[in-house]
Amino acid sequence: MSKNLLEHINNPTDLRKLSLSELPDLATELREFIIDIVSVKEGHLGASLGVVELTIALHYVFDTPNDLLVWDVGHQAYGHKILTERRTKFDTNRQLGGISGFPKRSESVYDTFGVGHSSTSISAALGMAIASQLKGENKHHIAVIGDASIASGMAFEGLNHAGVTAANLLVILNDNAIGIDPSVGALKHYLTSVKEGKNPKQNNMIKSLNFDYSGPIDGHDLPKLISELERLKKTKGPKFLHIVTTKGKGLEQAEKDQVKYHAPGKFDAKTGEITPKSEAHLPMKFQDVFGLTLVELAKNNPKIIGITPAMPSGSSMKFMMDAFPDRAFDVGIAEQHAVTLSAGMATQGMIVFCNIYSTFLQRAYDQVIHDVALQNLPVIFCLDRAGLVGEDGATHHGVFDIAYLRCIPNMIIYAPKDELDLQNILYTASLGLPHPIAIRYPRGRGKYSNLQLKITNYEFEKIEIGKAHLLKSGTKTAVLSTGFIGNNVSLALENRNQPETIAHYDFGFIKPLDEKLLHEIFNSFETIITIEDGTIKGSFGSAIVEFASENNYSKPVKVIGIPDTFIEHGTVEELQKMCGIDVKSLESLFLNY
Amino acid sequence: MSKNLLEHINNPTDLRKLSLSELPDLATELREFIIDIVSVKEGHLGASLGVVELTIALHYVFDTPNDLLVWDVGHQAYGHKILTERRTKFDTNRQLGGISGFPKRSESVYDTFGVGHSSTSISAALGMAIASQLKGENKHHIAVIGDASIASGMAFEGLNHAGVTAANLLVILNDNAIGIDPSVGALKHYLTSVKEGKNPKQNNMIKSLNFDYSGPIDGHDLPKLISELERLKKTKGPKFLHIVTTKGKGLEQAEKDQVKYHAPGKFDAKTGEITPKSEAHLPMKFQDVFGLTLVELAKNNPKIIGITPAMPSGSSMKFMMDAFPDRAFDVGIAEQHAVTLSAGMATQGMIVFCNIYSTFLQRAYDQVIHDVALQNLPVIFCLDRAGLVGEDGATHHGVFDIAYLRCIPNMIIYAPKDELDLQNILYTASLGLPHPIAIRYPRGRGKYSNLQLKITNYEFEKIEIGKAHLLKSGTKTAVLSTGFIGNNVSLALENRNQPETIAHYDFGFIKPLDEKLLHEIFNSFETIITIEDGTIKGSFGSAIVEFASENNYSKPVKVIGIPDTFIEHGTVEELQKMCGIDVKSLESLFLNY
Repeated sequence: MSKNLLEHINNPTDLRKLSLSELPDLATELREFIIDIVSVKEGHLGASLGVVELTIALHYVFDTPNDLLVWDVGHQAYGHKILTERRTKFDTNRQLGGISGFPKRSESVYDTFGVGHSSTSISAALGMAIASQLKGENKHHIAVIGDASIASGMAFEGLNHAGVTAANLLVILNDNAIGIDPSVGALKHYLTSVKEGKNPKQNNMIKSLNFDYSGPIDGHDLPKLISELERLKKTKGPKFLHIVTTKGKGLEQAEKDQVKYHAPGKFDAKTGEITPKSEAHLPMKFQDVFGLTLVELAKNNPKIIGITPAMPSGSSMKFMMDAFPDRAFDVGIAEQHAVTLSAGMATQGMIVFCNIYSTFLQRAYDQVIHDVALQNLPVIFCLDRAGLVGEDGATHHGVFDIAYLRCIPNMIIYAPKDELDLQNILYTASLGLPHPIAIRYPRGRGKYSNLQLKITNYEFEKIEIGKAHLLKSGTKTAVLSTGFIGNNVSLALENRNQPETIAHYDFGFIKPLDEKLLHEIFNSFETIITIEDGTIKGSFGSAIVEFASENNYSKPVKVIGIPDTFIEHGTVEELQKMCGIDVKSLESLFLNY
Repeated sequence: MSKNLLEHINNPTDLRKLSLSELPDLATELREFIIDIVSVKEGHLGASLGVVELTIALHYVFDTPNDLLVWDVGHQAYGHKILTERRTKFDTNRQLGGISGFPKRSESVYDTFGVGHSSTSISAALGMAIASQLKGENKHHIAVIGDASIASGMAFEGLNHAGVTAANLLVILNDNAIGIDPSVGALKHYLTSVKEGKNPKQNNMIKSLNFDYSGPIDGHDLPKLISELERLKKTKGPKFLHIVTTKGKGLEQAEKDQVKYHAPGKFDAKTGEITPKSEAHLPMKFQDVFGLTLVELAKNNPKIIGITPAMPSGSSMKFMMDAFPDRAFDVGIAEQHAVTLSAGMATQGMIVFCNIYSTFLQRAYDQVIHDVALQNLPVIFCLDRAGLVGEDGATHHGVFDIAYLRCIPNMIIYAPKDELDLQNILYTASLGLPHPIAIRYPRGRGKYSNLQLKITNYEFEKIEIGKAHLLKSGTKTAVLSTGFIGNNVSLALENRNQPETIAHYDFGFIKPLDEKLLHEIFNSFETIITIEDGTIKGSFGSAIVEFASENNYSKPVKVIGIPDTFIEHGTVEELQKMCGIDVKSLESLFLNY
């Protein structure tokens, strides 16, 4: 089938040499290329398959990189990367030192704006368009955004501004009715009615915002896409094109199970069959521990509520949504709303577990301060994917949360050292706390095998707020760790020749600190070392040096954590090594103590 | 004219005893009461005058506090406060120990949700409505939101969710076409067309989000308001009422000059004439120094851009908007968009001054990290109203910015110690920096008289990034201050008996720190004291103790700043005293050194 078109295309200039009639074959090749590599190297699949035709059409019609193309979120930009000088590097996708899984300015002139978090594309492209206008440059500026992302408040803010400008901006809505999970909300229902032709005036909502609206058209129909883009290229001002695509297009299973094939791991490129993993004896994921525990707690307490902004699968909130559909809410990509909705519920006595990835809580920082902490409402924030997340890279690491939450009065901050602690803190929080709490836990698996962790029969234990624990005694140096990274400390200490000199304490509570124990520690040891997967500026280590300073302790405190630089993508282990918090690095460090 | 209705109303139960025909007189009295007190005690005026009829109608029709009423932003809630048990305390409005200028849960059971920042009401009221539904309670939940606030992304997120629920939620759009400054954006144009009857189907946009839409109706017509609210009370599910009001209604000048009468200071209750202040010899406001300096810089550099999210008057960005309308943008209450728009412009080489109040940058925290700092785009953040803001109180203090920005790689953080430093850092930033910078400066006046500060003829000086300065030498103790609060330190040191023992350093740069000078300081002095108006958790003092710890200095470091608690309202001086950073407190502190 393949005509080997793709291998001759290094950049869009090559692409534009093809005839219109060759483009469908190129689309087939590009799709195969993505499937072949992602099936082995892993990564995001469905989103890029859905925009193969759009990607080709955009680079064919527009003069990239002179014309400026912004992909929202960016996990759909694999085709874009392959067509823009990165075909031969594409097999390094998401690996340490390889290309990023998202568009990235430092990687290519074709990546006009770094993305990863959703709903930024309209604002960014509008900024570019206004700049071009001021510079007298006649450029095109295109934002490609999905229907899940456009429902986020930030995208609305961008549209609301763009509509009153004369900026040369084209917003393309890639409507496939799904983000990572199926899209939700009133706008999604509205868009569906537009697609089904139920709305006589097509899309009044977008027209109301003063956009030149066209569509909906079939986003897999290359000739139609190209002729429409050619037409829009000649139209000045803010324009909006609504295209309809199928996520996972071209791979049968991916089209059928769009959630699973968002990022399916390894799979058979021919059959689409996902390669089975022998996971039976692996520890459970923290996410599942959260989700299953929440269901257990909710069984006994009708006031328990679960909220997720668009991550029911990723966070395992889906368990609660299945078990108690009336009490679990996927509010879409709307972190700000999620937090204040939680606050509103908490005023009425509900016990709200608001699960947000650490990196995405950055989107609702003001709401945490202004709507929750200031009113001292006991919302329970479950910060999934705290710390280093691995292959998603710089945009997604949850390394700032300790620093940005620690300065907020009333907040309790807790990092469980393992799955059992996670269960117990969820239980403790469900009993009612006098303050809001943020529970941060990592992406991925815990340390106990499935057999050891019996969710349903587990007898929860109440955790004393603010209490730290001695894990291993010692004579000279005290290592204070917070959260799951403490297991690296334990492992590093296990094989040590001089086990007696180093003590190890688990500070699950970053706030409030166990000051009583800290006084004991500072009075007993020569040196204190803090270990965390938060930024060394302002996080747990900083809290400990603040304590030391406040209490006039002059013992040396060594702070180990995420350095003051953005950490790129790679495996969690590789990135931990870069930060000196993997087991080996800690072993070396401990040799000096 | 007065029938003394108001003085017999202590709460809505009393109100509901009035006949319908008495309500217009009550409205007149309530308006007079607000004008009388605000004319003397100061505060927000126009917004509350605009909703006098709505306030009466809501408490008349609904069973508050059993039914739950949420005011967006809340500076329009004076009438609400007066009718809900706070009439006799209303003259303590915004004073230390007095009632808050905003609804506040701890103040009254009628204040169902604390506000201050905009656009939270729909999310909060929806949370309450869902909670009521789950508890089987038959309550009404009402969010009152202005047209400026509803254009913010967060409000859209709330609407988008509410539209797919069966929650018993009434959203009332109080459309007066103005926030603090006139509303902007495509939605505002659309709402205007609806009001002018140009849209045949009334409000398709809101209907598209699955709301039962009614209006627009005259928000000053009490009988109409009451009959419409009675009707809506019987309608289940999400409802939307569009009312049209005039900000400042009932005071001629306030209706005419709505921006000035938003919070006019003292004025004549009869004539409306604003009491003139003898300000000629007072120092200029930091805001005006910012605005006028930006214009000067922009004259010489066509790449300079100014962006404000809805604060052209407050931030004095209006000077730039008047002088260079093509290069200055009020994007509405859309901080997220403002930051990413700035980032988009910066990718095209524009020099963007994005002016956001410190407390509102919390709304765009993710955008600062993900869109600006991660890409190392040299956006210039001008953080107005950093530190304690005074009478606006807990919701508005800009005390977290140092802590939440300091953990972000690539960020430069600078706090000018006076207006000249502000001018010079704006100039320095305009020349192009290799990183983003946050320039934080306080609300209010600087220290130089107008005569000393000649904006137009001022010869700007380039500031060396990362350099701190000795202000006063000393022998035993080094006081390190950052920003304008350093003037309190200078004043406290001036009258000292033992002037020789304390040295004073100005650390304008909180990041990067002047490490060379810090080494000198830690090697030369016995004690170090840090003074700031940021939180003691994680801010400037924390950076200094981190430095000390990192470099194994064991000298005592005393950190003075905002304690780990929310600070209420009062004058800046009163609040500084509470935090121990006013001149007198510092004088006392210094007696020990």
